[in-house]
Parts: sequence; structure tokens; C-alpha cells
Amino acid sequence: MAERNIKLTISYDGTRYHGWQRQRNADTIEQRITDALQDLTGWQVELRGSSRTDAGVHALHQVANVHLDSPIPTSRIKQALNHRLPDDITILEVVEVPMEFDAVTDAVRKQYRYTIFTGSTRQVMQVRFSWHRPGKLDAAAMNTAAQCLVGTHDFKSFASAADRRQCSVRTISFCSVVEPQADTLQMDIEADGFLYNMVRNIMGTLVEIGRGRWPVEKMAEILAACDRTAAGPLAPACGLCLMKIDYETETRP
Amino acid sequence: MAERNIKLTISYDGTRYHGWQRQRNADTIEQRITDALQDLTGWQVELRGSSRTDAGVHALHQVANVHLDSPIPTSRIKQALNHRLPDDITILEVVEVPMEFDAVTDAVRKQYRYTIFTGSTRQVMQVRFSWHRPGKLDAAAMNTAAQCLVGTHDFKSFASAADRRQCSVRTISFCSVVEPQADTLQMDIEADGFLYNMVRNIMGTLVEIGRGRWPVEKMAEILAACDRTAAGPLAPACGLCLMKIDYETETRP
Repeated sequence: MAERNIKLTISYDGTRYHGWQRQRNADTIEQRITDALQDLTGWQVELRGSSRTDAGVHALHQVANVHLDSPIPTSRIKQALNHRLPDDITILEVVEVPMEFDAVTDAVRKQYRYTIFTGSTRQVMQVRFSWHRPGKLDAAAMNTAAQCLVGTHDFKSFASAADRRQCSVRTISFCSVVEPQADTLQMDIEADGFLYNMVRNIMGTLVEIGRGRWPVEKMAEILAACDRTAAGPLAPACGLCLMKIDYETETRP
Repeated sequence: MAERNIKLTISYDGTRYHGWQRQRNADTIEQRITDALQDLTGWQVELRGSSRTDAGVHALHQVANVHLDSPIPTSRIKQALNHRLPDDITILEVVEVPMEFDAVTDAVRKQYRYTIFTGSTRQVMQVRFSWHRPGKLDAAAMNTAAQCLVGTHDFKSFASAADRRQCSVRTISFCSVVEPQADTLQMDIEADGFLYNMVRNIMGTLVEIGRGRWPVEKMAEILAACDRTAAGPLAPACGLCLMKIDYETETRP
């Protein structure tokens, strides 16, 4: 039986997990899916997840791939995994892809959404998927400030110290701040990759501008500073959601 | 200090609670709010909740009242209670009402919504607030069948055996089944009151019609039977949400 490369598209409510990545003595999304795959196939497997989302961060379309030495049809894999996974983790799609496909290194663009609920009273149906920060924010000012981030820049100012990657240059293709409904503010951001905590640091900085503590122009100064202490505070994990990951190559064989 | 009558409007995600009503050794919404009120005022209080929602059932606007011997302003009560309550229970409004107001006996109409997600793959952001029942349902047939329930009837066929109330006659003012978006089916129902498990038994019966097991005409037969064994199975609690409660009298003094 020839080995196959399987691409999984995954959705999860990250509220009760210690993030994506497997770690000792912690309940993680990668661990849950790995366990389900091993239970199904009887083999040790290694999952390659594209984005290592943090504790409390959600995903609508995370992507991972895994090499399987099993003849189980992809439709059956999807069904069997969902049967073995808790309600807050769902496998949306299972497809067979060329052996060389790698969910981590082949990703060309990722999109995240950050949602803030600005009303005074928390809403129980939205509370798991947004940051409840009561008080008016100037969405137009935040959106103007965000535009200076678009393009290729060194984003060192927005990376957490824990990020050990050498290069902090990334290309943001868009970053928009809108108010889709009353008391709700939403930032959509897309880039070829993100530094550790980059989206949450950008959001925290934009909030300082939105509440009037910093002028719109401050954003360009913070970006130019290439200094981790220049940016605003880290926005909470619960408001962040991985929306989608794009791959250059057609991943269906 | 004169005693005051305080009306609370409450919203909750019922997923992890054993329903509204206080009971020994169980985590309930009434208990949580009672504890928060006692912690705030230092007094033993008795909360009067309008609808005793079951384990797993949600509420967007539950109503309760409580007599308080405390001068704390209503705006401060709201803030202090929300501070003391978990994220999945929220006090939306606190108002002082005439002493004779009773949230239980003064309710004239209640509205519930039942949501079914009919898509094949569960959606993590909606999974707490809907019944995941994969497979097409005929919403138009269900809506037609529902219309025979509108008006004043004996709803004994839709009451659970545990309901010990003498009279099972109620007046349904409307009951509509719609598909607000793809793969989502929604029933909105309003009545002067509901028997124990009545909404979930009606939903379970409508699903039997929607999936084609029973013809539309069966609904009128089941209603006329006044027999608890005639109706369809009980729909799960997670899809049910108490939407609002109307009171005849103006409750603001």
C-alpha cells in the first residue's frame, strides 16, 4: 500500500484549548486530531499544521497535512475523525494531495480576523469569539492608521520577544478595520506570513489610536521604530480567528 | 429603608448549566444569580424567574424579579452582578418596578426560537446554539403543519409526562418555520404559556413531517389526540432559546 498525503481543513473554537501545538500535559487541537487519526488508522502519525495558533485563538479554516499508510477513502476519514473529535473541533474537508505538498512551507497567504465587541453589556452568544472592550472606538481612524502597514515592511515592532525567527520582514496585502454592525469592530488582515503575536500586537496598537490616546500618524512611527517596546499592548486571544490559508499550487491532484 | 422590587432581564448560554431552577448539588443559572445578589447585598434573596428553562436551553431575554432591602442604584446593581457572574450569564437590564409586579404570574406571552443546523459538517461557531441534524428538511411543509397549532387548543399531546399542571390548554399566537440561510432551519413560536417540553415536542414532531416520515395532515391528528404518545420525539435542548417575555402592564414605574 502506497503512502498518501492527506490535506485537512479544520475549524475550531479555541476557547478551552492550549492552542494548536502539541505539548506535554496540555489539551491542544493538534493533539486531539493526532489522537483521532491514530485511533482511526492504528498508526503513529505526524500532523503538519500551517498556523500554530495560540491558546484561546479560533480558526475557521486551518490547514494541516499528514502522510497516511492507509487505504481509507477521504470521505470516510472526514466522517470518522469528526465522530472522534469533540464538538468544538471540526474537520471541514479531507482531500488527497501530491506527496510534495506541505501545509507549513507551501502556504503563500494567511488571513486573520480580529473582532471587538464595544457595547457595554457582554453578549453571551458572541462572548467566546470576540474581545469585550466596552467603549467607543474610532473605526475610521483605525482603518486609516492600518493602511501604512500594507506592503513589505520589517514588522519587528509588532513581534513578541518570544519570536525567534531571524527575518521579521513580511508583506501585508490588506488590513481593513470596519464596523459591520452596531457595537462591533472587525479587523481583517492578510499577509504572506505573520510573526509571533503580530496580529494581536497590531490590534492592540490600533485600539490605542481608536480610543484617541495616540494620533493616526503614530502607526507609521511605531512601524519605523523596529522596536518591540514601541507598539501598544497585546490584544486578548479570544478575539482572534484564523480565516483562511492560500496555497500557490492547486492542491487537489 | 423601604423594600424595592427589582426586575432583571437576563441572557445566558445554557450549555454548561443544569437549567434555570435551583436544585441541590447542581450548577444552575438561578443559583448563580442568587449567589451574586446575596454577595452584593449581604441578604438572603429569593429570585422569581419567569421561565424554568431546562438543562442546556439558552435565553436571550429571560425575566426575573427580586425584592431587595438595599439602596444600591439599579445601574450599579447591573454592573456589580455582571462583575460577579461568569461570561455565559449576563444581566442586560435592571429596573425598579411596582411592588406588585411578579415575573412569573404577570407574564402574558413568551416567545421561543428553535434552531436546527441541517448541513453535513458541524459548525464550531454555531454548535452551542443549534441542533445539528444533518439532512434536508422540508421547511414549507413544516410551516404549513405548524399553522394548525395556532389558536387556543389543548396541547396535552405535546406535554411531557412530568408536567403536573392541571390545565393543558394554551393559546399560540404564532408559529413559523423558516430557512433564514442555507442549512439552517428556524422555528419561532409565541404563546401565553408553554407546557413542560412543549416547544421541543412540537419541534420533534415537525421534524418527522419535514423529513417526510409523516404527512402535513398528521399534525392536526396529533393535536386532536390529546395523547402524549402521539407526538414525535423530543428535540434536543441545545437548539432551544427563550427569546422574550411580554408583560401586560408597563413595568417601569
